[in-house]
Amino acid sequence: MATIDLNCDLGESFGNFRVGNDEEVLSLVTSANVATGFHAGDPLVMLTTVRNAKANSVRIGAHVGYRDLAGFGRRFIDYDLDQLTAEVLYQIGALQAACRASGTEVEYVKPHGALYNRIARDAKQAQAVIAAMKLADPQLALMGLAGSPVLAWAEEAGLSTISETFADRAYENDGSLVPRSQPGAVHESVDEAAGQALNFALGEPITAVDGTKVSVAADSICVHGDNPHALTVVRTIRDTLTKNGIAVSS
Amino acid sequence: MATIDLNCDLGESFGNFRVGNDEEVLSLVTSANVATGFHAGDPLVMLTTVRNAKANSVRIGAHVGYRDLAGFGRRFIDYDLDQLTAEVLYQIGALQAACRASGTEVEYVKPHGALYNRIARDAKQAQAVIAAMKLADPQLALMGLAGSPVLAWAEEAGLSTISETFADRAYENDGSLVPRSQPGAVHESVDEAAGQALNFALGEPITAVDGTKVSVAADSICVHGDNPHALTVVRTIRDTLTKNGIAVSS
Amino acid sequence: MATIDLNCDLGESFGNFRVGNDEEVLSLVTSANVATGFHAGDPLVMLTTVRNAKANSVRIGAHVGYRDLAGFGRRFIDYDLDQLTAEVLYQIGALQAACRASGTEVEYVKPHGALYNRIARDAKQAQAVIAAMKLADPQLALMGLAGSPVLAWAEEAGLSTISETFADRAYENDGSLVPRSQPGAVHESVDEAAGQALNFALGEPITAVDGTKVSVAADSICVHGDNPHALTVVRTIRDTLTKNGIAVSS
Amino acid sequence: MATIDLNCDLGESFGNFRVGNDEEVLSLVTSANVATGFHAGDPLVMLTTVRNAKANSVRIGAHVGYRDLAGFGRRFIDYDLDQLTAEVLYQIGALQAACRASGTEVEYVKPHGALYNRIARDAKQAQAVIAAMKLADPQLALMGLAGSPVLAWAEEAGLSTISETFADRAYENDGSLVPRSQPGAVHESVDEAAGQALNFALGEPITAVDGTKVSVAADSICVHGDNPHALTVVRTIRDTLTKNGIAVSS
Repeated sequence: MATIDLNCDLGESFGNFRVGNDEEVLSLVTSANVATGFHAGDPLVMLTTVRNAKANSVRIGAHVGYRDLAGFGRRFIDYDLDQLTAEVLYQIGALQAACRASGTEVEYVKPHGALYNRIARDAKQAQAVIAAMKLADPQLALMGLAGSPVLAWAEEAGLSTISETFADRAYENDGSLVPRSQPGAVHESVDEAAGQALNFALGEPITAVDGTKVSVAADSICVHGDNPHALTVVRTIRDTLTKNGIAVSS
Repeated sequence: MATIDLNCDLGESFGNFRVGNDEEVLSLVTSANVATGFHAGDPLVMLTTVRNAKANSVRIGAHVGYRDLAGFGRRFIDYDLDQLTAEVLYQIGALQAACRASGTEVEYVKPHGALYNRIARDAKQAQAVIAAMKLADPQLALMGLAGSPVLAWAEEAGLSTISETFADRAYENDGSLVPRSQPGAVHESVDEAAGQALNFALGEPITAVDGTKVSVAADSICVHGDNPHALTVVRTIRDTLTKNGIAVSS
Repeated sequence: MATIDLNCDLGESFGNFRVGNDEEVLSLVTSANVATGFHAGDPLVMLTTVRNAKANSVRIGAHVGYRDLAGFGRRFIDYDLDQLTAEVLYQIGALQAACRASGTEVEYVKPHGALYNRIARDAKQAQAVIAAMKLADPQLALMGLAGSPVLAWAEEAGLSTISETFADRAYENDGSLVPRSQPGAVHESVDEAAGQALNFALGEPITAVDGTKVSVAADSICVHGDNPHALTVVRTIRDTLTKNGIAVSS
Repeated sequence: MATIDLNCDLGESFGNFRVGNDEEVLSLVTSANVATGFHAGDPLVMLTTVRNAKANSVRIGAHVGYRDLAGFGRRFIDYDLDQLTAEVLYQIGALQAACRASGTEVEYVKPHGALYNRIARDAKQAQAVIAAMKLADPQLALMGLAGSPVLAWAEEAGLSTISETFADRAYENDGSLVPRSQPGAVHESVDEAAGQALNFALGEPITAVDGTKVSVAADSICVHGDNPHALTVVRTIRDTLTKNGIAVSS
């Protein structure tokens, strides 16, 4: 039976600043990218999210980011590489403690925002993240952009990897994402998103933005839960997958 | 042979802001209270400090503090207790990761500054810290003010404790510290500090500020290394202990 | 004609973290307490809020707070008083620049959260805030809790003051607020809140929690706009005031 | 009589983290670039620095930086331009308040570190800074790298400018700085630095790194005071200028 993982960014609230609908999302996804406090999240939010993920049997990943709460980790920062390694190690460690305290563990690392985009192709920052993961726990998997070089770099370093795709994003005919700045970058139709998710899960090619077919290897599909519409999309994707005989599982 | 531990706050630099003389201090003390990033320290400083402590066979403790870099953790903050527990767990976890990455481990927790003073007598914040330690690792010892209630509370909760004394601080005749705001609170004389350290190590009573004798149980003596004079004091204390047959050891 | 001011906390969003419904609120109130970046708000949010307040002819106040984004300024912090004065001056100055850039000005200061509550009765922190206001602009008025000592202290220092009351909070028979921890502290009924607002505006006594009548001098009434229900309450209060011939004006 | 300004970065301490020797430096320079709290400095340090600069009749500039205390403003951050404008305005406003409170004023803006280097040649971030300056006070001058495009952009926008040179840095034969990564980038010899400062002050060409002569227009020379050696260099530069009949003045 075909299997696919659904992952979502969670635990992004910070103190009085509330983000997302974590409780609902945790009943729908199979992997939780838990913010680790540098771009979003705080220690109590992290601990609560871990406990809720554990209660829902959801796999836990460290959603590590640049130290940039004001920019929500979405701005590139030209880090000293030793500092980047140390910061990623620090964030993973903090989440590991929350997991151990909750009878579960961190299984993967998914860098957030600008760091995610940067390491997809920038070998220096990518190696800094990989080094941190090996220092923290060589069993950690790296979740990264399907088809991007960082997955190969992680595997060369002995890490396992998780290829991530996006149900609601259009792809170029080479398997890369259509940049958000271009028209048609996001599938507004829920059915189109659900259909693309099903293609990913079945290992079938998807339709690229130019109408041609392209194959994108997918271990996990990223979904969003930060507003009621997003929740509806997740539910539709999950229902579509289930009805078509796909096991949604991490 | 009588044995005493010497501990010092270390790893307090933050980015470009440099504090202390950590390399020299690590050759003199036997326990390092490593700042964990909330009141001082940053992830790279932490990792470097842990590696240097390991190289010097120095025991490592988590020097956890309030989230208050601007106040260096020296101002009381009226925390929500769940948040305090989560923040202490977060900080310990971050340091545990740095230690595992360096082939060593966190053996104790010494709260910093205002948190240290607060939990000495405030049961609520004390229990929040104790809860975090039990979540992180029940084998962790709590280093706290000799004679203060927090040590008993920690033991009741099943944690081991380390009674900390101060070589350069004057004591009242009930074994409490003379507040810094009062005259004579600090021993300016190096010899007086070294003599008091020797009393602690030998289990002998010290001379209280009113001239009477008072016994203060001491497992560890806190020393400072943030300026050349402080380093001289540490060296004198260590030499005095060694010459008098005391084993300086954690 | 009787006149009353309606004030609301605004500009509390921080980067990607969104708070409140500022646009709707600005069409309903006459004074905007603009967060100045230490407990909430960021420079772009501040500038945007000032421009929108100016467009709505809404009076602008500096909503200064403790440096505590993680605690949203709601936790008491035991500040060094010189630092507190300097931080309040800094925050006022930042908002003054946003106002000058927008063709308007800061007319008052309303401390936020724990600072508001603290200075109501703590002379030391109160004088630190008053000193900052005099350094920034002696024409600034202090908005503070009706009946609390801080208003007298400000007037003794030569500042004008704005007595603030709360439409939805119950009062003791001495004119102080019923603490939130006690039952009946908040008027759940919209009509009750609107009625109390009308009493304030007309200079009539209100009904205290024990059923007796108490007079509370009110220059401004604080309202909230952070959720749809809160917006409904503000609209009802404003409509009630207007229908009863009260001029809502700063 | 030839005149030259000496400027130095000041007020970079943050809470308990002490940086520099501000008191000594203020007796030697004629312009103080006062850190405004985003990359360094805190409100009390700012206010104290402004008062000391005023007491020494030293001109005050806003040393604005990226919001990056952990990186000391030395790392490029890919800002949203509206946010950058708002942050620069915020920082200038905070310093303006400290100046008004001290009977003086902000006369210029010198961006710090990575922002300084970026806007020297990046028109987008440069225009964001220029926009902030015009919003804050159109009389503000921009201090920027001598010969770099930003000075022309500022003048086109109606701002006055201050061309800044470096006594201890080697120059290429086109008037640009030799990058720090290259050998010979910094003049280790105090006499060489003092001689180059004298060339700048007299409007004479300096000797480029390749031995040729190059003219660099200089309104101000940047000096450093963060260690005893740096202070010696400043004193030597000032003495050399004075002995050669140069008026050191802003």
